[in-house]
Amino acid sequence: MKKIDHVGIAVKDIDVSNALFEKLLGVSPYKLEEVESEGVLTSFFKTDTNKIELLAATNPESPIAKFLEKKGEGIHHIAFEVENIQEEVERLKSEGFVVLNEIPKKGADNKWVVFLHPKSTNGVLVELCQSI
Amino acid sequence: MKKIDHVGIAVKDIDVSNALFEKLLGVSPYKLEEVESEGVLTSFFKTDTNKIELLAATNPESPIAKFLEKKGEGIHHIAFEVENIQEEVERLKSEGFVVLNEIPKKGADNKWVVFLHPKSTNGVLVELCQSI
Repeated sequence: MKKIDHVGIAVKDIDVSNALFEKLLGVSPYKLEEVESEGVLTSFFKTDTNKIELLAATNPESPIAKFLEKKGEGIHHIAFEVENIQEEVERLKSEGFVVLNEIPKKGADNKWVVFLHPKSTNGVLVELCQSI
Repeated sequence: MKKIDHVGIAVKDIDVSNALFEKLLGVSPYKLEEVESEGVLTSFFKTDTNKIELLAATNPESPIAKFLEKKGEGIHHIAFEVENIQEEVERLKSEGFVVLNEIPKKGADNKWVVFLHPKSTNGVLVELCQSI
């Protein structure tokens, strides 16, 4: 793992939360992007070398909609940048971590992403991401 | 806010989780520190310019023990580094954020810390921290 790329936060309304995080962080979001395959609308804020990603559901069957229904708004995942996502997946599997998608998916902000199952990571949804 | 200082993760057993995060992050914890006033035992991992902080309860009345009881293991808070914590508290109060402790407390890893109420921050427990 190279560094924290971003922390993802599940929100109900992207406009309301964009305004809130703009006040909190003192910067404006630099990108609004929909990831249709995941049913999610994302918004990104730069905080020095990392990012905060807000995630809102675009349909009631999306993982974010289910998260919001079960747990409410709050921190959803932490993403670490990796150099070679396939190698990192193999390394983590050999260490006993459970990978949710072995084949990297195209995520927001030009990244290949893989998620680890929270059951194998102390309840933390961990995302690995590699720039495309 | 300058940058993400660390992400805090609530864990049941610091030794078990130290071994797990060492495997996950590929680095060893650099510090184990008890904050007696908060009833918490912490462990820190460097991930580039940020840190991961593991938090385990040292008594059943501590905030971490209550968090674990209610929500189980997982991401507990996100901490942002600030230059002047008192100024930042005043700024955030004037923007409508609810501050949990107006007078900074001494936290782990040589920091003055202030927490914002998750009700005012989209369900996210936000910590402000300033190096002592």
